[in-house]
Amino acid sequence: MATAYLGSKKANAAALMSSPSSSPQRILSQDELKKIAAYKAVEFVESGMVLGLGTGSTAKHAIDRIGELLQQGKLANIVGIPTSTITHEQALSLGIPLSDLDNHPVLDLAIDGADEVDPDMNLVKGRGGSLLREKMIEGCCKKFVVIVDESKLVDYVGGSGLAMPVEIVPFCWKFTAHKLQSLFAEAGCDAKLRISPQNGKPYVTDNGNFIIDLYFKKDIGDLKAAGDAILRLAGVVEHGMFIDMATTLIVAGELGVTVWIG
Amino acid sequence: MATAYLGSKKANAAALMSSPSSSPQRILSQDELKKIAAYKAVEFVESGMVLGLGTGSTAKHAIDRIGELLQQGKLANIVGIPTSTITHEQALSLGIPLSDLDNHPVLDLAIDGADEVDPDMNLVKGRGGSLLREKMIEGCCKKFVVIVDESKLVDYVGGSGLAMPVEIVPFCWKFTAHKLQSLFAEAGCDAKLRISPQNGKPYVTDNGNFIIDLYFKKDIGDLKAAGDAILRLAGVVEHGMFIDMATTLIVAGELGVTVWIG
Repeated sequence: MATAYLGSKKANAAALMSSPSSSPQRILSQDELKKIAAYKAVEFVESGMVLGLGTGSTAKHAIDRIGELLQQGKLANIVGIPTSTITHEQALSLGIPLSDLDNHPVLDLAIDGADEVDPDMNLVKGRGGSLLREKMIEGCCKKFVVIVDESKLVDYVGGSGLAMPVEIVPFCWKFTAHKLQSLFAEAGCDAKLRISPQNGKPYVTDNGNFIIDLYFKKDIGDLKAAGDAILRLAGVVEHGMFIDMATTLIVAGELGVTVWIG
Repeated sequence: MATAYLGSKKANAAALMSSPSSSPQRILSQDELKKIAAYKAVEFVESGMVLGLGTGSTAKHAIDRIGELLQQGKLANIVGIPTSTITHEQALSLGIPLSDLDNHPVLDLAIDGADEVDPDMNLVKGRGGSLLREKMIEGCCKKFVVIVDESKLVDYVGGSGLAMPVEIVPFCWKFTAHKLQSLFAEAGCDAKLRISPQNGKPYVTDNGNFIIDLYFKKDIGDLKAAGDAILRLAGVVEHGMFIDMATTLIVAGELGVTVWIG
Protein backbone atom coordinates (compact mmCIF):
# COMPACT_ATOMS: atom_id res chain seq x y z
CA MET A 1 0.00 0.00 0.00
CA ALA A 2 2.78 2.41 0.88
CA THR A 3 4.47 1.48 -2.40
CA ALA A 4 1.30 2.09 -4.36
CA TYR A 5 1.12 5.48 -2.69
CA LEU A 6 4.69 6.25 -3.68
CA GLY A 7 3.69 5.84 -7.30
CA SER A 8 0.81 8.28 -6.97
CA LYS A 9 0.47 11.74 -8.48
CA LYS A 10 2.04 13.34 -5.40
CA ALA A 11 5.23 13.88 -7.34
CA ASN A 12 6.86 16.25 -4.88
CA ALA A 13 6.55 13.95 -1.90
CA ALA A 14 9.65 12.03 -0.98
CA ALA A 15 9.98 8.93 1.11
CA LEU A 16 12.65 10.03 3.53
CA MET A 17 12.80 6.91 5.59
CA SER A 18 11.41 3.44 5.52
CA SER A 19 12.50 1.50 8.55
CA PRO A 20 10.87 -1.90 8.90
CA SER A 21 9.68 -1.96 12.47
CA SER A 22 8.52 -5.55 12.42
CA SER A 23 9.13 -8.68 10.49
CA PRO A 24 6.54 -9.41 7.79
CA GLN A 25 5.57 -12.52 9.74
CA ARG A 26 4.07 -10.62 12.64
CA ILE A 27 0.84 -8.79 11.90
CA LEU A 28 0.60 -5.50 13.81
CA SER A 29 -2.77 -4.28 14.98
CA GLN A 30 -4.14 -1.00 13.60
CA ASP A 31 -3.61 0.56 17.01
CA GLU A 32 0.04 -0.55 17.09
CA LEU A 33 0.54 1.05 13.68
CA LYS A 34 -1.05 4.29 14.93
CA LYS A 35 1.32 4.28 17.89
CA ILE A 36 4.36 3.80 15.66
CA ALA A 37 3.34 6.77 13.48
CA ALA A 38 2.61 8.88 16.57
CA TYR A 39 5.99 8.19 18.19
CA LYS A 40 7.73 9.02 14.93
CA ALA A 41 5.88 12.36 14.77
CA VAL A 42 6.96 13.29 18.29
CA GLU A 43 10.58 13.14 17.09
CA PHE A 44 9.81 16.48 15.38
CA VAL A 45 8.99 18.10 18.74
CA GLU A 46 11.68 20.28 20.32
CA SER A 47 11.84 22.00 23.69
CA GLY A 48 10.30 25.50 23.72
CA MET A 49 7.77 24.79 21.00
CA VAL A 50 4.13 25.91 20.89
CA LEU A 51 2.34 22.72 19.83
CA GLY A 52 -1.08 22.01 18.32
CA LEU A 53 -2.43 18.87 19.95
CA GLY A 54 -4.75 16.83 17.73
CA THR A 55 -7.82 14.78 18.55
CA GLY A 56 -8.55 11.11 17.98
CA SER A 57 -7.05 7.68 18.60
CA THR A 58 -3.76 8.33 16.74
CA ALA A 59 -3.16 11.83 18.14
CA LYS A 60 -3.82 10.42 21.62
CA HIS A 61 -0.69 8.29 21.34
CA ALA A 62 1.38 11.34 20.35
CA ILE A 63 0.10 13.36 23.29
CA ASP A 64 0.83 10.47 25.69
CA ARG A 65 4.37 10.37 24.30
CA ILE A 66 4.87 14.14 24.71
CA GLY A 67 3.70 13.85 28.32
CA GLU A 68 6.16 11.01 28.89
CA LEU A 69 9.11 12.97 27.45
CA LEU A 70 8.19 16.01 29.56
CA GLN A 71 8.13 13.86 32.70
CA GLN A 72 11.49 12.33 31.77
CA GLY A 73 12.93 15.81 31.31
CA LYS A 74 13.74 15.09 27.65
CA LEU A 75 11.43 17.94 26.62
CA ALA A 76 10.89 21.28 28.40
CA ASN A 77 8.97 24.55 27.98
CA ILE A 78 6.29 23.07 25.76
CA VAL A 79 3.00 24.94 25.38
CA GLY A 80 0.13 22.83 24.05
CA ILE A 81 -2.93 24.15 22.20
CA PRO A 82 -5.59 21.42 22.35
CA THR A 83 -8.02 20.94 19.43
CA SER A 84 -10.90 19.60 21.54
CA THR A 85 -12.17 19.40 25.08
CA ILE A 86 -11.21 15.70 25.15
CA THR A 87 -7.62 16.50 24.20
CA HIS A 88 -7.62 19.35 26.72
CA GLU A 89 -8.51 16.87 29.47
CA GLN A 90 -5.91 14.35 28.33
CA ALA A 91 -3.12 16.95 28.16
CA LEU A 92 -4.08 18.39 31.56
CA SER A 93 -3.89 14.93 33.13
CA LEU A 94 -0.39 14.49 31.69
CA GLY A 95 0.81 17.84 33.05
CA ILE A 96 1.33 19.43 29.62
CA PRO A 97 1.10 23.25 30.01
CA LEU A 98 -1.81 24.54 27.91
CA SER A 99 -2.82 27.78 26.23
CA ASP A 100 -5.04 28.86 23.33
CA LEU A 101 -4.97 30.59 19.94
CA ASP A 102 -5.91 33.96 21.42
CA ASN A 103 -2.63 33.94 23.34
CA HIS A 104 -0.53 31.99 20.81
CA PRO A 105 -1.78 32.82 17.31
CA VAL A 106 1.28 31.21 15.67
CA LEU A 107 2.23 27.60 16.40
CA ASP A 108 5.52 25.88 15.70
CA LEU A 109 4.10 22.45 15.04
CA ALA A 110 0.84 20.54 15.16
CA ILE A 111 0.44 16.77 15.24
CA ASP A 112 -2.83 15.13 14.37
CA GLY A 113 -4.37 12.10 12.73
CA ALA A 114 -6.64 12.11 9.69
CA ASP A 115 -9.55 10.02 8.47
CA GLU A 116 -8.36 10.02 4.88
CA VAL A 117 -5.27 11.23 3.01
CA ASP A 118 -5.43 11.63 -0.75
CA PRO A 119 -2.42 11.40 -3.11
CA ASP A 120 -1.91 15.20 -2.87
CA MET A 121 -1.74 15.06 0.93
CA ASN A 122 -5.18 16.64 1.22
CA LEU A 123 -6.98 15.31 4.28
CA VAL A 124 -10.45 14.45 5.45
CA LYS A 125 -10.82 15.09 9.15
CA GLY A 126 -13.65 15.42 11.61
CA ARG A 127 -15.01 11.93 12.05
CA GLY A 128 -14.08 12.59 15.68
CA GLY A 129 -16.22 15.75 15.52
CA SER A 130 -13.47 18.34 16.16
CA LEU A 131 -12.90 19.53 12.61
CA LEU A 132 -13.49 23.22 13.26
CA ARG A 133 -11.07 23.68 16.14
CA GLU A 134 -8.57 21.41 14.41
CA LYS A 135 -8.76 23.55 11.27
CA MET A 136 -8.41 26.81 13.19
CA ILE A 137 -5.35 25.55 15.05
CA GLU A 138 -3.68 23.55 12.31
CA GLY A 139 -4.19 26.37 9.86
CA CYS A 140 -1.69 28.58 11.65
CA CYS A 141 1.19 26.13 12.26
CA LYS A 142 4.61 26.43 10.71
CA LYS A 143 4.62 22.63 10.40
CA PHE A 144 1.63 20.29 10.41
CA VAL A 145 2.58 16.64 10.84
CA VAL A 146 -0.18 14.18 9.99
CA ILE A 147 0.01 10.66 11.36
CA VAL A 148 -1.95 7.74 9.94
CA ASP A 149 -1.85 4.01 9.49
CA GLU A 150 -1.84 2.95 5.86
CA SER A 151 -5.58 2.15 5.84
CA LYS A 152 -6.22 5.91 5.66
CA LEU A 153 -4.60 6.38 2.25
CA VAL A 154 -7.25 6.87 -0.45
CA ASP A 155 -7.31 7.60 -4.16
CA TYR A 156 -9.77 10.47 -3.68
CA VAL A 157 -11.69 12.23 -0.90
CA GLY A 158 -14.45 9.87 0.21
CA GLY A 159 -12.65 6.96 -1.44
CA SER A 160 -12.70 4.92 1.76
CA GLY A 161 -16.49 4.82 1.59
CA LEU A 162 -16.57 6.72 4.86
CA ALA A 163 -17.87 10.22 5.45
CA MET A 164 -16.61 13.72 4.75
CA PRO A 165 -18.11 15.66 7.66
CA VAL A 166 -19.56 19.17 7.47
CA GLU A 167 -20.30 21.20 10.61
CA ILE A 168 -23.57 23.16 10.31
CA VAL A 169 -25.77 25.28 12.57
CA PRO A 170 -28.67 23.29 14.03
CA PHE A 171 -31.25 25.79 12.69
CA CYS A 172 -33.15 24.07 9.82
CA TRP A 173 -30.51 21.35 9.50
CA LYS A 174 -32.65 19.28 7.11
CA PHE A 175 -32.69 22.18 4.68
CA THR A 176 -28.89 22.52 4.84
CA ALA A 177 -28.39 18.75 4.53
CA HIS A 178 -30.55 18.76 1.42
CA LYS A 179 -28.57 21.66 -0.08
CA LEU A 180 -25.30 19.80 0.58
CA GLN A 181 -26.58 16.62 -1.02
CA SER A 182 -27.79 18.56 -4.07
CA LEU A 183 -24.41 20.25 -4.42
CA PHE A 184 -22.75 16.87 -5.05
CA ALA A 185 -25.59 15.08 -6.82
CA GLU A 186 -23.26 14.14 -9.68
CA ALA A 187 -20.93 12.34 -7.27
CA GLY A 188 -23.87 10.32 -5.93
CA CYS A 189 -23.74 12.15 -2.62
CA ASP A 190 -25.70 10.93 0.38
CA ALA A 191 -26.01 13.41 3.30
CA LYS A 192 -26.73 12.07 6.78
CA LEU A 193 -27.13 13.81 10.11
CA ARG A 194 -24.64 12.37 12.60
CA ILE A 195 -26.38 10.75 15.56
CA SER A 196 -24.72 10.35 18.94
CA PRO A 197 -24.44 6.64 19.82
CA GLN A 198 -24.73 7.61 23.50
CA ASN A 199 -28.25 9.03 23.41
CA GLY A 200 -29.61 8.56 19.88
CA LYS A 201 -29.92 12.34 19.50
CA PRO A 202 -28.07 14.55 16.98
CA TYR A 203 -24.35 14.65 17.74
CA VAL A 204 -23.42 18.12 19.04
CA THR A 205 -19.92 19.55 18.46
CA ASP A 206 -17.85 21.48 21.01
CA ASN A 207 -19.28 24.61 19.32
CA GLY A 208 -22.92 23.57 19.79
CA ASN A 209 -23.40 22.65 16.11
CA PHE A 210 -24.50 19.53 14.20
CA ILE A 211 -22.49 17.38 11.77
CA ILE A 212 -23.75 16.30 8.35
CA ASP A 213 -21.74 13.34 7.03
CA LEU A 214 -21.40 13.35 3.25
CA TYR A 215 -20.82 10.03 1.47
CA PHE A 216 -19.59 10.19 -2.12
CA LYS A 217 -19.84 7.40 -4.69
CA LYS A 218 -17.39 9.15 -7.02
CA ASP A 219 -14.50 11.62 -6.93
CA ILE A 220 -15.86 15.16 -6.43
CA GLY A 221 -13.02 16.67 -8.47
CA ASP A 222 -11.55 20.09 -7.66
CA LEU A 223 -11.46 20.17 -3.86
CA LYS A 224 -10.91 23.92 -3.52
CA ALA A 225 -13.95 24.66 -5.68
CA ALA A 226 -15.96 22.07 -3.72
CA GLY A 227 -14.83 23.62 -0.43
CA ASP A 228 -15.82 27.14 -1.50
CA ALA A 229 -19.22 25.91 -2.73
CA ILE A 230 -19.87 24.23 0.63
CA LEU A 231 -18.82 27.31 2.61
CA ARG A 232 -21.06 29.56 0.52
CA LEU A 233 -24.14 27.70 1.79
CA ALA A 234 -25.56 29.78 4.62
CA GLY A 235 -25.91 27.37 7.53
CA VAL A 236 -22.54 25.70 6.95
CA VAL A 237 -19.86 26.46 9.54
CA GLU A 238 -16.91 24.41 8.23
CA HIS A 239 -16.09 21.32 6.17
CA GLY A 240 -13.72 18.47 6.93
CA MET A 241 -11.42 18.80 3.91
CA PHE A 242 -7.99 20.07 4.94
CA ILE A 243 -6.62 21.21 1.59
CA ASP A 244 -2.91 22.08 1.19
CA MET A 245 -2.44 22.14 4.96
CA ALA A 246 -0.33 19.09 5.82
CA THR A 247 3.41 19.69 5.53
CA THR A 248 4.55 16.23 6.66
CA LEU A 249 2.82 12.88 6.45
CA ILE A 250 3.83 9.86 8.52
CA VAL A 251 2.33 6.57 7.40
CA ALA A 252 2.75 3.43 9.47
CA GLY A 253 2.28 0.15 7.65
CA GLU A 254 3.22 -3.50 8.02
CA LEU A 255 6.49 -2.83 6.24
CA GLY A 256 7.53 0.14 8.34
CA VAL A 257 7.10 3.86 8.70
CA THR A 258 7.24 6.23 5.75
CA VAL A 259 7.72 9.98 6.17
CA TRP A 260 6.56 12.24 3.37
CA ILE A 261 7.37 15.93 3.05
CA GLY A 262 4.72 17.90 1.13
CA MET B 1 -30.17 60.90 -3.40
CA ALA B 2 -32.54 58.68 -5.39
CA THR B 3 -31.55 60.60 -8.51
CA ALA B 4 -27.85 60.20 -7.78
CA TYR B 5 -28.53 56.50 -7.36
CA LEU B 6 -30.25 56.34 -10.72
CA GLY B 7 -27.06 57.56 -12.31
CA SER B 8 -25.00 54.86 -10.66
CA LYS B 9 -23.32 51.88 -12.29
CA LYS B 10 -26.41 49.71 -11.75
CA ALA B 11 -27.22 49.98 -15.44
CA ASN B 12 -29.87 47.26 -15.48
CA ALA B 13 -31.93 48.74 -12.69
CA ALA B 14 -34.97 50.70 -13.74
CA ALA B 15 -37.00 53.19 -11.80
CA LEU B 16 -40.47 51.79 -12.32
CA MET B 17 -42.35 54.23 -10.25
CA SER B 18 -41.79 57.45 -8.44
CA SER B 19 -44.91 58.62 -6.69
CA PRO B 20 -44.42 61.61 -4.44
CA SER B 21 -46.09 60.62 -1.20
CA SER B 22 -45.61 63.92 0.52
CA SER B 23 -45.08 67.51 -0.37
CA PRO B 24 -41.43 68.64 -0.24
CA GLN B 25 -42.44 71.07 2.50
CA ARG B 26 -43.17 68.38 5.04
CA ILE B 27 -40.13 66.49 6.36
CA LEU B 28 -40.90 62.84 6.97
CA SER B 29 -39.16 61.03 9.80
CA GLN B 30 -36.90 58.09 9.00
CA ASP B 31 -39.49 55.78 10.54
CA GLU B 32 -42.23 57.20 8.32
CA LEU B 33 -40.04 56.59 5.26
CA LYS B 34 -39.44 53.01 6.41
CA LYS B 35 -43.19 52.50 6.76
CA ILE B 36 -43.84 53.84 3.26
CA ALA B 37 -41.28 51.43 1.77
CA ALA B 38 -42.69 48.54 3.82
CA TYR B 39 -46.27 49.12 2.74
CA LYS B 40 -45.17 49.37 -0.88
CA ALA B 41 -43.39 45.98 -0.53
CA VAL B 42 -46.50 44.31 0.85
CA GLU B 43 -48.26 45.14 -2.44
CA PHE B 44 -46.16 42.28 -3.88
CA VAL B 45 -47.73 39.79 -1.47
CA GLU B 46 -50.51 37.57 -2.82
CA SER B 47 -52.79 35.09 -1.10
CA GLY B 48 -51.35 31.56 -0.91
CA MET B 49 -47.72 32.68 -0.79
CA VAL B 50 -44.93 31.26 1.36
CA LEU B 51 -43.27 34.40 2.71
CA GLY B 52 -39.87 35.10 4.24
CA LEU B 53 -40.37 37.58 7.07
CA GLY B 54 -37.39 39.84 7.71
CA THR B 55 -36.00 41.30 10.91
CA GLY B 56 -35.48 44.90 11.94
CA SER B 57 -37.34 48.18 12.19
CA THR B 58 -38.32 48.37 8.50
CA ALA B 59 -39.34 44.71 8.14
CA LYS B 60 -41.43 45.12 11.29
CA HIS B 61 -43.71 47.57 9.47
CA ALA B 62 -44.15 45.10 6.59
CA ILE B 63 -45.09 42.27 8.97
CA ASP B 64 -47.57 44.51 10.79
CA ARG B 65 -49.14 45.35 7.44
CA ILE B 66 -49.37 41.66 6.41
CA GLY B 67 -51.06 40.88 9.73
CA GLU B 68 -53.52 43.75 9.13
CA LEU B 69 -54.42 42.54 5.60
CA LEU B 70 -54.92 38.98 6.91
CA GLN B 71 -57.26 40.24 9.61
CA GLN B 72 -59.18 42.29 7.06
CA GLY B 73 -59.53 39.21 4.85
CA LYS B 74 -57.63 40.93 2.02
CA LEU B 75 -54.95 38.21 2.18
CA ALA B 76 -55.45 34.51 2.91
CA ASN B 77 -53.46 31.26 3.13
CA ILE B 78 -50.16 32.98 3.86
CA VAL B 79 -47.35 30.93 5.42
CA GLY B 80 -44.60 32.99 7.05
CA ILE B 81 -41.00 31.88 7.59
CA PRO B 82 -39.50 34.18 10.24
CA THR B 83 -35.81 35.12 10.08
CA SER B 84 -35.36 35.58 13.84
CA THR B 85 -36.94 34.75 17.16
CA ILE B 86 -38.07 38.39 17.47
CA THR B 87 -39.89 38.24 14.14
CA HIS B 88 -41.31 34.85 15.12
CA GLU B 89 -42.86 36.44 18.21
CA GLN B 90 -44.19 39.43 16.29
CA ALA B 91 -45.78 37.26 13.57
CA LEU B 92 -47.30 34.91 16.17
CA SER B 93 -48.89 37.86 17.98
CA LEU B 94 -50.44 39.01 14.68
CA GLY B 95 -51.87 35.57 13.92
CA ILE B 96 -49.70 34.96 10.84
CA PRO B 97 -49.40 31.15 10.30
CA LEU B 98 -45.72 30.15 10.57
CA SER B 99 -43.49 27.35 9.32
CA ASP B 100 -39.79 26.82 8.62
CA LEU B 101 -37.32 26.02 5.85
CA ASP B 102 -37.32 22.31 6.64
CA ASN B 103 -40.99 22.19 5.66
CA HIS B 104 -40.92 24.93 3.01
CA PRO B 105 -37.52 24.90 1.31
CA VAL B 106 -38.72 27.17 -1.51
CA LEU B 107 -40.29 30.56 -0.77
CA ASP B 108 -42.33 32.73 -3.10
CA LEU B 109 -41.22 36.04 -1.68
CA ALA B 110 -39.19 37.52 1.15
CA ILE B 111 -39.38 41.09 2.43
CA ASP B 112 -36.60 42.53 4.54
CA GLY B 113 -34.69 45.71 5.26
CA ALA B 114 -30.96 46.23 4.79
CA ASP B 115 -28.27 48.23 6.53
CA GLU B 116 -26.63 49.28 3.28
CA VAL B 117 -27.40 48.91 -0.42
CA ASP B 118 -24.64 49.47 -2.96
CA PRO B 119 -25.17 50.60 -6.57
CA ASP B 120 -25.27 46.93 -7.73
CA MET B 121 -28.05 46.11 -5.24
CA ASN B 122 -25.64 44.17 -3.06
CA LEU B 123 -26.62 44.50 0.59
CA VAL B 124 -25.06 44.65 3.99
CA LYS B 125 -27.29 43.07 6.58
CA GLY B 126 -26.94 41.83 10.11
CA ARG B 127 -26.66 44.92 12.25
CA GLY B 128 -29.76 43.46 13.90
CA GLY B 129 -27.80 40.23 14.44
CA SER B 130 -29.93 37.86 12.31
CA LEU B 131 -27.75 37.70 9.22
CA LEU B 132 -27.39 33.91 9.13
CA ARG B 133 -31.07 33.01 9.28
CA GLU B 134 -31.88 35.88 6.95
CA LYS B 135 -29.34 34.61 4.41
CA MET B 136 -30.58 31.03 4.64
CA ILE B 137 -34.19 32.09 4.10
CA GLU B 138 -33.68 34.89 1.60
CA GLY B 139 -31.29 32.73 -0.43
CA CYS B 140 -34.12 30.42 -1.52
CA CYS B 141 -36.82 32.90 -2.47
CA LYS B 142 -38.16 33.37 -5.97
CA LYS B 143 -38.35 37.11 -5.21
CA PHE B 144 -36.47 39.04 -2.54
CA VAL B 145 -37.84 42.54 -1.98
CA VAL B 146 -35.54 44.84 -0.02
CA ILE B 147 -37.03 47.89 1.67
CA VAL B 148 -34.96 50.86 2.81
CA ASP B 149 -35.10 54.55 3.37
CA GLU B 150 -32.71 56.51 1.19
CA SER B 151 -30.14 56.90 3.99
CA LYS B 152 -29.14 53.25 3.36
CA LEU B 153 -27.86 53.83 -0.18
CA VAL B 154 -24.05 53.78 -0.27
CA ASP B 155 -21.36 54.01 -2.91
CA TYR B 156 -19.62 50.86 -1.62
CA VAL B 157 -20.00 48.25 1.14
CA GLY B 158 -19.06 49.94 4.41
CA GLY B 159 -19.52 53.35 2.78
CA SER B 160 -21.92 54.50 5.50
CA GLY B 161 -19.10 54.24 8.03
CA LEU B 162 -21.11 51.57 9.82
CA ALA B 163 -20.23 47.94 10.23
CA MET B 164 -20.25 44.88 7.98
CA PRO B 165 -21.01 42.12 10.49
CA VAL B 166 -19.45 38.63 10.47
CA GLU B 167 -20.90 35.81 12.60
CA ILE B 168 -18.16 33.67 14.16
CA VAL B 169 -17.93 30.82 16.67
CA PRO B 170 -17.08 32.05 20.18
CA PHE B 171 -14.06 29.71 20.41
CA CYS B 172 -10.90 31.90 20.24
CA TRP B 173 -12.84 34.86 18.88
CA LYS B 174 -9.88 37.25 19.28
CA PHE B 175 -7.87 35.08 16.93
CA THR B 176 -10.65 35.11 14.32
CA ALA B 177 -11.18 38.87 14.72
CA HIS B 178 -7.48 39.42 14.13
CA LYS B 179 -7.54 37.22 11.01
CA LEU B 180 -10.52 39.18 9.66
CA GLN B 181 -8.85 42.52 10.29
CA SER B 182 -5.66 41.30 8.57
CA LEU B 183 -7.64 40.12 5.55
CA PHE B 184 -8.76 43.70 4.85
CA ALA B 185 -5.70 45.57 6.09
CA GLU B 186 -5.47 47.46 2.78
CA ALA B 187 -8.99 48.80 3.24
CA GLY B 188 -8.04 50.11 6.71
CA CYS B 189 -10.23 47.51 8.38
CA ASP B 190 -11.04 47.72 12.07
CA ALA B 191 -12.58 44.56 13.62
CA LYS B 192 -14.63 44.90 16.80
CA LEU B 193 -16.47 42.33 18.87
CA ARG B 194 -20.12 43.34 19.17
CA ILE B 195 -21.11 43.96 22.79
CA SER B 196 -24.68 43.65 24.03
CA PRO B 197 -25.87 47.02 25.36
CA GLN B 198 -28.12 45.13 27.79
CA ASN B 199 -25.39 43.41 29.81
CA GLY B 200 -22.03 44.62 28.51
CA LYS B 201 -21.14 41.03 27.49
CA PRO B 202 -20.49 39.78 23.97
CA TYR B 203 -23.65 39.87 21.87
CA VAL B 204 -24.85 36.29 21.21
CA THR B 205 -26.79 35.45 18.03
CA ASP B 206 -29.82 33.16 17.81
CA ASN B 207 -27.30 30.45 16.88
CA GLY B 208 -25.14 30.92 19.97
CA ASN B 209 -22.36 32.71 18.07
CA PHE B 210 -20.58 36.07 18.35
CA ILE B 211 -20.56 38.96 15.86
CA ILE B 212 -17.40 40.74 14.70
CA ASP B 213 -18.23 44.14 13.19
CA LEU B 214 -15.84 45.12 10.39
CA TYR B 215 -15.38 48.83 9.64
CA PHE B 216 -13.76 49.70 6.33
CA LYS B 217 -12.09 53.02 5.49
CA LYS B 218 -12.04 52.18 1.77
CA ASP B 219 -13.90 50.09 -0.80
CA ILE B 220 -12.89 46.42 -0.45
CA GLY B 221 -13.33 45.80 -4.17
CA ASP B 222 -14.57 42.45 -5.50
CA LEU B 223 -17.27 41.42 -3.03
CA LYS B 224 -17.50 37.79 -4.14
CA ALA B 225 -13.77 37.30 -3.67
CA ALA B 226 -13.96 39.07 -0.30
CA GLY B 227 -16.87 36.86 0.75
CA ASP B 228 -15.05 33.65 -0.18
CA ALA B 229 -11.91 34.78 1.67
CA ILE B 230 -13.96 35.49 4.79
CA LEU B 231 -15.76 32.13 4.63
CA ARG B 232 -12.46 30.26 4.20
CA LEU B 233 -11.36 31.41 7.66
CA ALA B 234 -12.08 28.54 10.03
CA GLY B 235 -14.11 30.08 12.83
CA VAL B 236 -16.29 32.18 10.53
CA VAL B 237 -19.92 31.08 10.22
CA GLU B 238 -21.31 33.69 7.81
CA HIS B 239 -20.81 37.29 6.65
CA GLY B 240 -23.32 40.07 6.23
CA MET B 241 -22.84 40.76 2.52
CA PHE B 242 -25.86 39.64 0.50
CA ILE B 243 -24.40 39.54 -2.99
CA ASP B 244 -26.67 39.21 -6.05
CA MET B 245 -29.60 38.23 -3.86
CA ALA B 246 -32.04 41.16 -3.97
CA THR B 247 -34.43 41.04 -6.91
CA THR B 248 -36.39 44.20 -6.06
CA LEU B 249 -35.37 47.29 -4.15
CA ILE B 250 -37.83 49.76 -2.71
CA VAL B 251 -36.35 53.07 -1.60
CA ALA B 252 -38.42 55.61 0.29
CA GLY B 253 -37.19 59.17 0.21
CA GLU B 254 -38.52 62.66 0.72
CA LEU B 255 -39.56 62.84 -2.92
CA GLY B 256 -41.40 59.53 -3.03
CA VAL B 257 -40.92 55.82 -3.39
CA THR B 258 -38.70 54.30 -6.05
CA VAL B 259 -38.94 50.64 -7.04
CA TRP B 260 -35.93 49.04 -8.69
CA ILE B 261 -35.88 45.65 -10.39
CA GLY B 262 -32.45 44.02 -10.32
